[in-house]
Amino acid sequence: MKDVKRFVKVGDLPTGEKNNICDVPGVKVGHYTLNNETHHTGLTAILPHDGNMFRKKVEGGSFAFNGFGKSVGLMQIDELGTIETPIILTNTLNVGGVSDGLVKYMLANNKEICTICGTVNPVVMECNDGKLNNIREILFGEKEVLNVIASANDDFIQGSVGAGAGMICNGLKGGIGSSSRKITINTKDYTVGVLVNSNFGPSNSKALIFNGRPIGEDIYRINQSKNEYDKGSIIVVVATDVPLDSRQLRRVAKRAALGIARTGSYAGNGSGDVFVSFSTANITNHFEENSTRQIEVLKDDYIEKVFKATVLATEEAILNSMLFSPTVKGYLGEAKSINEYRELFEDMLINE
Amino acid sequence: MKDVKRFVKVGDLPTGEKNNICDVPGVKVGHYTLNNETHHTGLTAILPHDGNMFRKKVEGGSFAFNGFGKSVGLMQIDELGTIETPIILTNTLNVGGVSDGLVKYMLANNKEICTICGTVNPVVMECNDGKLNNIREILFGEKEVLNVIASANDDFIQGSVGAGAGMICNGLKGGIGSSSRKITINTKDYTVGVLVNSNFGPSNSKALIFNGRPIGEDIYRINQSKNEYDKGSIIVVVATDVPLDSRQLRRVAKRAALGIARTGSYAGNGSGDVFVSFSTANITNHFEENSTRQIEVLKDDYIEKVFKATVLATEEAILNSMLFSPTVKGYLGEAKSINEYRELFEDMLINE
Amino acid sequence: MKDVKRFVKVGDLPTGEKNNICDVPGVKVGHYTLNNETHHTGLTAILPHDGNMFRKKVEGGSFAFNGFGKSVGLMQIDELGTIETPIILTNTLNVGGVSDGLVKYMLANNKEICTICGTVNPVVMECNDGKLNNIREILFGEKEVLNVIASANDDFIQGSVGAGAGMICNGLKGGIGSSSRKITINTKDYTVGVLVNSNFGPSNSKALIFNGRPIGEDIYRINQSKNEYDKGSIIVVVATDVPLDSRQLRRVAKRAALGIARTGSYAGNGSGDVFVSFSTANITNHFEENSTRQIEVLKDDYIEKVFKATVLATEEAILNSMLFSPTVKGYLGEAKSINEYRELFEDMLINE
Amino acid sequence: MKDVKRFVKVGDLPTGEKNNICDVPGVKVGHYTLNNETHHTGLTAILPHDGNMFRKKVEGGSFAFNGFGKSVGLMQIDELGTIETPIILTNTLNVGGVSDGLVKYMLANNKEICTICGTVNPVVMECNDGKLNNIREILFGEKEVLNVIASANDDFIQGSVGAGAGMICNGLKGGIGSSSRKITINTKDYTVGVLVNSNFGPSNSKALIFNGRPIGEDIYRINQSKNEYDKGSIIVVVATDVPLDSRQLRRVAKRAALGIARTGSYAGNGSGDVFVSFSTANITNHFEENSTRQIEVLKDDYIEKVFKATVLATEEAILNSMLFSPTVKGYLGEAKSINEYRELFEDMLINE
Repeated sequence: MKDVKRFVKVGDLPTGEKNNICDVPGVKVGHYTLNNETHHTGLTAILPHDGNMFRKKVEGGSFAFNGFGKSVGLMQIDELGTIETPIILTNTLNVGGVSDGLVKYMLANNKEICTICGTVNPVVMECNDGKLNNIREILFGEKEVLNVIASANDDFIQGSVGAGAGMICNGLKGGIGSSSRKITINTKDYTVGVLVNSNFGPSNSKALIFNGRPIGEDIYRINQSKNEYDKGSIIVVVATDVPLDSRQLRRVAKRAALGIARTGSYAGNGSGDVFVSFSTANITNHFEENSTRQIEVLKDDYIEKVFKATVLATEEAILNSMLFSPTVKGYLGEAKSINEYRELFEDMLINE
Repeated sequence: MKDVKRFVKVGDLPTGEKNNICDVPGVKVGHYTLNNETHHTGLTAILPHDGNMFRKKVEGGSFAFNGFGKSVGLMQIDELGTIETPIILTNTLNVGGVSDGLVKYMLANNKEICTICGTVNPVVMECNDGKLNNIREILFGEKEVLNVIASANDDFIQGSVGAGAGMICNGLKGGIGSSSRKITINTKDYTVGVLVNSNFGPSNSKALIFNGRPIGEDIYRINQSKNEYDKGSIIVVVATDVPLDSRQLRRVAKRAALGIARTGSYAGNGSGDVFVSFSTANITNHFEENSTRQIEVLKDDYIEKVFKATVLATEEAILNSMLFSPTVKGYLGEAKSINEYRELFEDMLINE
Repeated sequence: MKDVKRFVKVGDLPTGEKNNICDVPGVKVGHYTLNNETHHTGLTAILPHDGNMFRKKVEGGSFAFNGFGKSVGLMQIDELGTIETPIILTNTLNVGGVSDGLVKYMLANNKEICTICGTVNPVVMECNDGKLNNIREILFGEKEVLNVIASANDDFIQGSVGAGAGMICNGLKGGIGSSSRKITINTKDYTVGVLVNSNFGPSNSKALIFNGRPIGEDIYRINQSKNEYDKGSIIVVVATDVPLDSRQLRRVAKRAALGIARTGSYAGNGSGDVFVSFSTANITNHFEENSTRQIEVLKDDYIEKVFKATVLATEEAILNSMLFSPTVKGYLGEAKSINEYRELFEDMLINE
Repeated sequence: MKDVKRFVKVGDLPTGEKNNICDVPGVKVGHYTLNNETHHTGLTAILPHDGNMFRKKVEGGSFAFNGFGKSVGLMQIDELGTIETPIILTNTLNVGGVSDGLVKYMLANNKEICTICGTVNPVVMECNDGKLNNIREILFGEKEVLNVIASANDDFIQGSVGAGAGMICNGLKGGIGSSSRKITINTKDYTVGVLVNSNFGPSNSKALIFNGRPIGEDIYRINQSKNEYDKGSIIVVVATDVPLDSRQLRRVAKRAALGIARTGSYAGNGSGDVFVSFSTANITNHFEENSTRQIEVLKDDYIEKVFKATVLATEEAILNSMLFSPTVKGYLGEAKSINEYRELFEDMLINE
């Protein structure tokens, strides 16, 4: 399925060339996947640029629509408005080890941290893959972090891979999905890219909406699953080259919730819906002689298209996370691929 | 159209008897409407109970999904977790006069305010009805506030009435809409009721989704409207008899955003999307001898159904706000009724 | 006492020439005071610049350390990062009427509002002067707003004047106080100015700290006042010409709490401690052809001096608000001037 | 110095018997300290009660006065209002490893986590001890976490111990400090206890205020230290048996900032001032048949004394953190004990 760029046309904005977050110039993504008898889990790294993130920080924002989650690093993004490490996604119980590994990676590459500079703020985000993965066996640390960062490239596969290997979305196989949108503001072209790790939604599938069609009700009728609680989460990372500041990036991150809603989510109690956004347009140099910096910032009057692109790309990224995933049998059961219910939405599919 | 209780079945939860916010026991709603050559505007009052609100405060929460708005009273709701006046909706420029009127109403009914007690926190929320209404003529004050509160009853009409008289939603006539849901938690029955004043969405109608169907694209094709910016806002008031505290009510209020998203909103830059929620289950007596109070609070593990009910009732309330509204010609133009495009969704209508 | 520029030396940073908020170039302050048998109340206006505030918005931030207050306009400052009207201080129950008046003033001066533009966000802040003033008689509206704005000048008197006429701080006469600090960042000179309306602190005076000395305990020993509850509030407005964005201005506003703490405050339950800050360095033009703007922003590494200046100027402004105030007899009693206890701190006074 | 209960009388409220956070019934504290040639660092654990924290969660709140910090677990405390693990303090770069260790400790003691229950939210807080400690050598994990939790007791030593071993406050040796206050609300006795890890303040000592006296200026005059930047942080944990809910506990946590301010802090840019609070009065059982729980909650009208106790105990805890600390020579230099400047405050000392 790797040659497919687009399965489903969500909204009227054009996608970028790859229809993923790497359409934002400079952004790279890597995966580290562990699949074996008891484990379906991994890491996914998003690199805002491939330079030294500590020395060249990107402007960032965050929003926790539902803070029932254990992601780390958001407090400092909100306070200082910058992101200074790669963003790593993994499973919930690995956050500690992966944070530790990410800090060690940063120390190894920046002798200035905690010598002539202060500390570093690792950004690690998580969902719980505890059904398909034996999550109580905590496995990841520095080695896997180095590996996933080294593997980052300007294109990547989606679905049951990396941090998405064991995720379940609306009772079906979820995981890593991505999509992008091109927008034009006053004759200037920009890109908005979204990457999700989808793990939300009631396990009876009933709530799922596929590009407007409530196919979840049909899946529910077929499966008669009884579990109606939402135990999952969703992580959304929004990247753009629109020149936005941290306040605006928080506004953008918030809109991810609207894209999720369009797939049927109620943001259930246990669903840690946590979003991070960044702009590659304005870099903060850690070492700089001047006390001020000159930056370009979009006027809020023009931000509407960024919001719309974020909503649509988030919705499509979630659908992609499912469409790219096969059925996976794992630790405590299996999660079927949405493609097993293809007749419910086949007429809506495109093939680009 | 007043005998219709339900036009459209949104989701699978049953509605309350009236399918409006007054299904929550004790909640009353009143309207004051001004329709003339240059004005289509008014006030809508939501009374959490019909006792003395200052002496018997309800637990409250709020959330500003997009704080591009001028609603007042939310800061104190967040700090103290209580609502101590009726909630009044009006147009943006009338907030000052209506706050003033609401304070005077409270003073008249509570000789203790600013004598033996402290001050009072008026809650007034707004949207901009400046296309159908000559909003620069500011008209409302104490008289209209007294009038709208006096008119409150346990049932009410919807659409282009009260604060909704001049509102426009997705380029069509919007205004006051309401819906409710019945939920059962551990054998106990509860109600969630939502009232909206809908005034959001791009004026070209293109984004509008009607219960899953993107009818906005068809309306856009018919009208070829060129204005694609979202200049409006939406106010959502969520009422329930589920015993929730302020933290939980804020979580509930947040979910209103998901209901709005299901109708196609991107929460545009200028759309002040502001939500207030309250529970009638735990009253705080202003005068009380004890320093502590015994309250019943839902465990968060059981809150999921409240979230779902809020999302669905918000979506249906928005559709109702349009379905109950006729075409209105006003100050600077007209807003067509969604019913003029009935062929696009007639097969989806029910008639209860 | 009007020739005194400085009574007390708080900290080691130099003050501006006037030692008040008008040391920040362009900032003007005006008062409207009502003193009669039953009223000691009024309005104070702070104009960030004397141009058209709607067309030339200043960057702004806010922070509610204790949101038990009724100030309006803060939600939109946080969302959009700008202030587009003069900031008016008054008493709690007048907020509605004064907001209404401020909106009317803005409409009169900006025909574009609600015609070719959207609405306007009035910023009105308040404290409760209900002991010295018959606050239940609500008196202010458009006329007083026009008056106070027209009276604004680049210097002003402090103490029991304008919005401070009836305020009580730590059981003594409080009101309007101001102070400023000069700072140098990388050879460039900047100013931070603070204006407070002080109305906080337990009425038994016991908590009051005067530049480090706990004179409140002595005053308490003298007066044996029994009321130990804190029913007041404090409004702090911080102005600066340091180029800061909204995120940074929120950080600055937060520091006002530290200045208040240094005078002995516990931020009591009923004390609405609400802060607004703005920078005159970056103007957002309402009408602008470009979709982006070029701005200069301080690096956060250099913000420390702004924080320090804010803390010190807030502390000194509070002391000034008391030192400039005479004993005032009012509606339900009197508030003594701190100067009646001069022997407790006379050795600490300076006279510049 | 271990027999001294109290050095300095801050304010007029009585302390608890031990004058530390363990005066709140059930609270325990443990330390793990590593002192050698290149390391002065460690862990400090606060146990809200000595039962199973996951099954019997305490009500919690948090507030980041300055979010330039890497503490973890706060997002979920804010969302759900509960704390379900011991709170562990350590140095900044160890947060990942200690989180990992805390998760493993919780898994070992709760077979239900990630089997029949969801995940667990570790709370780990940090300051940067990089001057006295070779912080780039990351050392702590599960073993040290088990050790520090096992060592927890109902009394503990203060100063350069546990997570405080390498901390520096205002250029002098800081670390772990604690204090408590007894309050009576409507005839009922309660306790507020505070524990800090102090690491804030400009290294030139100049800002330091000792119970109202600006001794920092004298120390500065003596030492002529040139570094005036604030690179540190402070963690404050507030415990109480007053029946408060999460909203109220957030209000309480905020007041820690005022206590810090009284010691001279400006909350400098790099000072991550992060606070967590909890009440032992209302326990949330993870396993519970009922969907609601009956709780007792203080009326906010009575919360003032809790605020005051928090401010005073925070101030005294900071002074204690310094007074209990000897001079320490470490990795990149030394931090002198405040006791080397005893003549500046000896007349203010008490000996209880």
